[in-house]
Amino acid sequence: MPLPADRFFDPDPAQRQVARQLYQSVANLPLICPHGHIDPSMLADPDYSFGSPVDLFIIPDHYVFRMLYSQGIQLEQLGISPFSASPVLLPEEKEVRHRRAWQIFADLFHLFRGTPTGIWLTHELSEVFGVNDPLTSGSAMPIYDQISEKLASPEYRPRTLFKRFNIEVLCTTDAATDTLEQHAILRASGWRGRLRPTFRPDRVVNLDDPGWRENIALLSSLSRIDVHDFHSYIAAIENRRWFFKQMDAAATDHGVITPFTIELSSAEADAIFQRALKGKPRKGDAVRFTGHMLIEMARMSTEDGLVMQLHPGSFRNHNSWLYVTYGADKGADIPVATEYTRSLRPLLAKYGNDPRFTLIVFTLDETTYARELAPLAGHYPAVKLGPPWWFYDSLNGMRRYFDQVIETAGLYNTAGFNDDTRAFCSIPARHDLWRRAACNWLAGLVVRHILLEAEAFEMAADCATGLARRAYRL
Amino acid sequence: MPLPADRFFDPDPAQRQVARQLYQSVANLPLICPHGHIDPSMLADPDYSFGSPVDLFIIPDHYVFRMLYSQGIQLEQLGISPFSASPVLLPEEKEVRHRRAWQIFADLFHLFRGTPTGIWLTHELSEVFGVNDPLTSGSAMPIYDQISEKLASPEYRPRTLFKRFNIEVLCTTDAATDTLEQHAILRASGWRGRLRPTFRPDRVVNLDDPGWRENIALLSSLSRIDVHDFHSYIAAIENRRWFFKQMDAAATDHGVITPFTIELSSAEADAIFQRALKGKPRKGDAVRFTGHMLIEMARMSTEDGLVMQLHPGSFRNHNSWLYVTYGADKGADIPVATEYTRSLRPLLAKYGNDPRFTLIVFTLDETTYARELAPLAGHYPAVKLGPPWWFYDSLNGMRRYFDQVIETAGLYNTAGFNDDTRAFCSIPARHDLWRRAACNWLAGLVVRHILLEAEAFEMAADCATGLARRAYRL
Amino acid sequence: MPLPADRFFDPDPAQRQVARQLYQSVANLPLICPHGHIDPSMLADPDYSFGSPVDLFIIPDHYVFRMLYSQGIQLEQLGISPFSASPVLLPEEKEVRHRRAWQIFADLFHLFRGTPTGIWLTHELSEVFGVNDPLTSGSAMPIYDQISEKLASPEYRPRTLFKRFNIEVLCTTDAATDTLEQHAILRASGWRGRLRPTFRPDRVVNLDDPGWRENIALLSSLSRIDVHDFHSYIAAIENRRWFFKQMDAAATDHGVITPFTIELSSAEADAIFQRALKGKPRKGDAVRFTGHMLIEMARMSTEDGLVMQLHPGSFRNHNSWLYVTYGADKGADIPVATEYTRSLRPLLAKYGNDPRFTLIVFTLDETTYARELAPLAGHYPAVKLGPPWWFYDSLNGMRRYFDQVIETAGLYNTAGFNDDTRAFCSIPARHDLWRRAACNWLAGLVVRHILLEAEAFEMAADCATGLARRAYRL
Repeated sequence: MPLPADRFFDPDPAQRQVARQLYQSVANLPLICPHGHIDPSMLADPDYSFGSPVDLFIIPDHYVFRMLYSQGIQLEQLGISPFSASPVLLPEEKEVRHRRAWQIFADLFHLFRGTPTGIWLTHELSEVFGVNDPLTSGSAMPIYDQISEKLASPEYRPRTLFKRFNIEVLCTTDAATDTLEQHAILRASGWRGRLRPTFRPDRVVNLDDPGWRENIALLSSLSRIDVHDFHSYIAAIENRRWFFKQMDAAATDHGVITPFTIELSSAEADAIFQRALKGKPRKGDAVRFTGHMLIEMARMSTEDGLVMQLHPGSFRNHNSWLYVTYGADKGADIPVATEYTRSLRPLLAKYGNDPRFTLIVFTLDETTYARELAPLAGHYPAVKLGPPWWFYDSLNGMRRYFDQVIETAGLYNTAGFNDDTRAFCSIPARHDLWRRAACNWLAGLVVRHILLEAEAFEMAADCATGLARRAYRL
Repeated sequence: MPLPADRFFDPDPAQRQVARQLYQSVANLPLICPHGHIDPSMLADPDYSFGSPVDLFIIPDHYVFRMLYSQGIQLEQLGISPFSASPVLLPEEKEVRHRRAWQIFADLFHLFRGTPTGIWLTHELSEVFGVNDPLTSGSAMPIYDQISEKLASPEYRPRTLFKRFNIEVLCTTDAATDTLEQHAILRASGWRGRLRPTFRPDRVVNLDDPGWRENIALLSSLSRIDVHDFHSYIAAIENRRWFFKQMDAAATDHGVITPFTIELSSAEADAIFQRALKGKPRKGDAVRFTGHMLIEMARMSTEDGLVMQLHPGSFRNHNSWLYVTYGADKGADIPVATEYTRSLRPLLAKYGNDPRFTLIVFTLDETTYARELAPLAGHYPAVKLGPPWWFYDSLNGMRRYFDQVIETAGLYNTAGFNDDTRAFCSIPARHDLWRRAACNWLAGLVVRHILLEAEAFEMAADCATGLARRAYRL
Repeated sequence: MPLPADRFFDPDPAQRQVARQLYQSVANLPLICPHGHIDPSMLADPDYSFGSPVDLFIIPDHYVFRMLYSQGIQLEQLGISPFSASPVLLPEEKEVRHRRAWQIFADLFHLFRGTPTGIWLTHELSEVFGVNDPLTSGSAMPIYDQISEKLASPEYRPRTLFKRFNIEVLCTTDAATDTLEQHAILRASGWRGRLRPTFRPDRVVNLDDPGWRENIALLSSLSRIDVHDFHSYIAAIENRRWFFKQMDAAATDHGVITPFTIELSSAEADAIFQRALKGKPRKGDAVRFTGHMLIEMARMSTEDGLVMQLHPGSFRNHNSWLYVTYGADKGADIPVATEYTRSLRPLLAKYGNDPRFTLIVFTLDETTYARELAPLAGHYPAVKLGPPWWFYDSLNGMRRYFDQVIETAGLYNTAGFNDDTRAFCSIPARHDLWRRAACNWLAGLVVRHILLEAEAFEMAADCATGLARRAYRL
């Protein structure tokens, strides 16, 4: 059966009718994707294939396999190999294993009931692959065949889907030391879709990163600046930002455990940097250094115009056994309580009133929506609030966001939506969910006589595309 | 168009009907205003005029101008001057500037969509000034003229509006060193409206206040007690409380960054006081001193019967450039996470079981509603929970409050509503919003068969007036 | 009037209809009670009587008397005596006092409007005692008589009610040093109801417990292991767990102020233990020792298969005067903010991936639902999330739980419901409330087209019984 037309709207007939009308006015607007984790090589290679249904739906999607893992399924059963035992499989062996993994996935598909992952998967199966039967133990193999056949066809190349999905612009997330070669290939190819890189310098900023020194060496070599002290380090980073800007970047992105900022003296910044270069950091160095670098990055943004994104509060790789055995991004990143009011003050004291600067703040701690972030975004000209992130990119998460943010920040100090995904085929599902949630929220305000219908139509379009376009200056 | 009769009620027809009936039963009850920031001179002077529409709606209202500021409007454009450049304007110059400011306000009025400020402004324009056209770029000047004309008429003197608004009692907030001269003038004038002062000693308690020593000198002179040690300091404060009580005060109010309380030895309290008098406080002195003084204030309340209000958790003047340039109360106060369970324990250990004592606690950290404040209010005889404060004085804020507080504290351990406003003309709008939100919440319980209708009618009246009257002993 | 059939369901007719159908499918399922505080002697003695209505409804129920206390009623007025003045009353004296207490309760019954206590009491009066008139000042004495008569009859013995309530299994909570004599008597009696003990070792683990050393002596004597060092202490605890297991225990339970865990060296664990035995603990010893013992308990659970429950975050006996005068459990336990992500990591690093281990985590800090607990439960195979606890065992508490937990954890990483009560007659009311709340939540997902009806029926049954049965391996 096809997806229900009124899905996700409130059951009240009056609200539902308004929600439906609002949604219809934005359903076909193009997708603006200012932040995400799509691999650019998918689009650089015109013949890129997603592989098997398991390659597409399970192996790269930590939302999916962490839920199966939580119920006792081993990652190997899902086609995910440990570092130490990555098997070289014949195609037939892979096929057998992937069919087994898909069967497990189908057997346990009930685990995703009521979750955003369940909603996205259902949308992808139906809208992208034409699978309208429920995925069950019984239907697993026929559906596997159906998807496999589609994936083998030219209609399922990423470039074709990019157009079919009506994506206007898609920003990737790229290390400061990335050469952006795939972006270059893509631009050279004359393909007309718009893909833009994003400068993410975490691995040259975070002194706790085990590869930091290696990345500094790489930074030196790419920037052709000999990075030997804090001064040359800053110059090299500015150089890379300049390169990203040339390559059409609109923004930077910063993943940190805490949004703590602090302005260090040049001497202290250099001393910390030197200790780190020698592999002898002191306790607290990493936190202070990152806190200082966030302010430096804000300064650079006022100069080069790149929009600054801040993603704090994820305790990465919480499950140490899993991390050591299978690596990062295995569904074991757990949020921690996060403080913004005091933490961001040093940065905002310097650049919060600067009209050249935009800081888009995200959170994994919803208690800060109404208490800290909405008041900050509702006051500082530079601050915009990003959409519900990660675990909160969901119907309830969006409802709580609108509920807690807008009364204080207003809609126009928010940054619209971004899908933040690695799963290319889930992009339409995610935007659809957001647009429906936004329209349903607006409809609730209309039927409560808080908004006029005409206002709600304008705001629906802003939620769908306008806010993101303006916040990211796309 | 006039305000919709069913505004803010849930769209479900059954709930809406009950909500409407409940609301009709309380809509015309008088307004009880036990806490707010109205300037008493407004009422002391029978000919007081609000000035221009910008003087009334924009310049004194940090809710309004902070939102415009957050979108890049400079405060000067809104008629707000920096310290260093306060212009002396001819009336015609002022008129030109205020019309320009009003035009900006109208151009950007969409920023307030879905915010309580938008709701209050719409209510004021419609109900107080008879402006039923939407405020837009095009209607800005006609509406400016319309309001100006009204403001010039005798019907728009504060005393007349006080009566028209049906205010039964209005409490102001006054420094411990305030002479309450305006209150005295008002009482002497024979005017029959009831205005009562509130004792707010923050600036003689908070050692971090840059004017603390100056205020201590003032305290000495007003109390005619030579304040030279902790003992005489306490005596002087008791003296001022006595004076406020004579002047009809019902309550005290305490704004603190944290609700931390601690009982110091007399020796330590005096030592801290002496260091502060000498201008040589140590780190931590201010927090400990305030913590001790909150307990002292509770003791005094058991003796003089003044109800004690506690407003913690606002990081004042977060934007340091703005503070230095334009001063305090410029929309840059940002909440911080607040802890009550451990913080209030020393105070409650001494006075929490005392039948003479009432402590009304407020919060800017909604996470404490269900976790800390409702359990405290639902147990200690002295503790009542104040209404949703500041950012949460809104439809969603009220819904979350009822949702999170009442199941544990019960309605009868709450303190009803207060408008907490500097904006005199917004008082009816704020009470109307509260009454509608309360009736809608009660209607939700009725249609879920949790309350009988008769119970809901009683509770609606309690929300509107009874709870506040009783909590503040008005 | 009897209880309304559609109570607690949303008013929207479509949602209400689905909720009603779902509820009807689970309303008569047996009650699974895997965690609670029923006194086993109630069931061990076939002739046990609850005493007077006040003995049943007020004296043992801190939910009830704390609300009355918060409004100025003294505990003595409710039949609760201080330690120092426990009166020996003639039956007639007791009768007079209890009638007076009941009258106060009835006079103030409006305090419970909108609270879960009010809902439970109304349910008990109606469904258990056939009292359908509202409890008011006027009806107080007739209702007292009506209940007294019922309580005197054989139909109101706990064993009879156990059967009438359709309880399938009821787990008690028992100190590690409990002999489980009442459980033994019950088993020997041949009664067919299932009562199972739970191993709760707090008082032999928490070094801050004033009776700790006494309890260690008791532990020695019961285990017949001379507890003189950490090694023998562990052996004695394992011995008691073994005994509990023999006595049919399914689980352990751990009440802690914080879920902090840490793995100590054997030497440090023993050193702390020795200091405690000598009555000379150092600052921080208790927290570290408890943190280590939680990991030890997890290890034992992997060996003996007992499910581990963790209940952190209650600041017990907050009102020190009340505690000293009347003792523990007097309604003065207040929650504190609680951190799980970092706190549980050492424990989960060792046992979080172990298929033999189940850790059911509870919280009094709802901010951790979506931020920490759902992500943990949605990843670690060992972690399940317990139902809304204590203050949150309420309609709104349940709604917030479903709202914040399920999208990330999925329903199948939760542990269903438990009533956690001392009040035997409230058990059916509590399960009824949960079942209605769960069905209403599911109905909301059905009418929003997030679930199919068939899925919702399955999930309703899981909420009612399946999840609890599986999580506790009952």
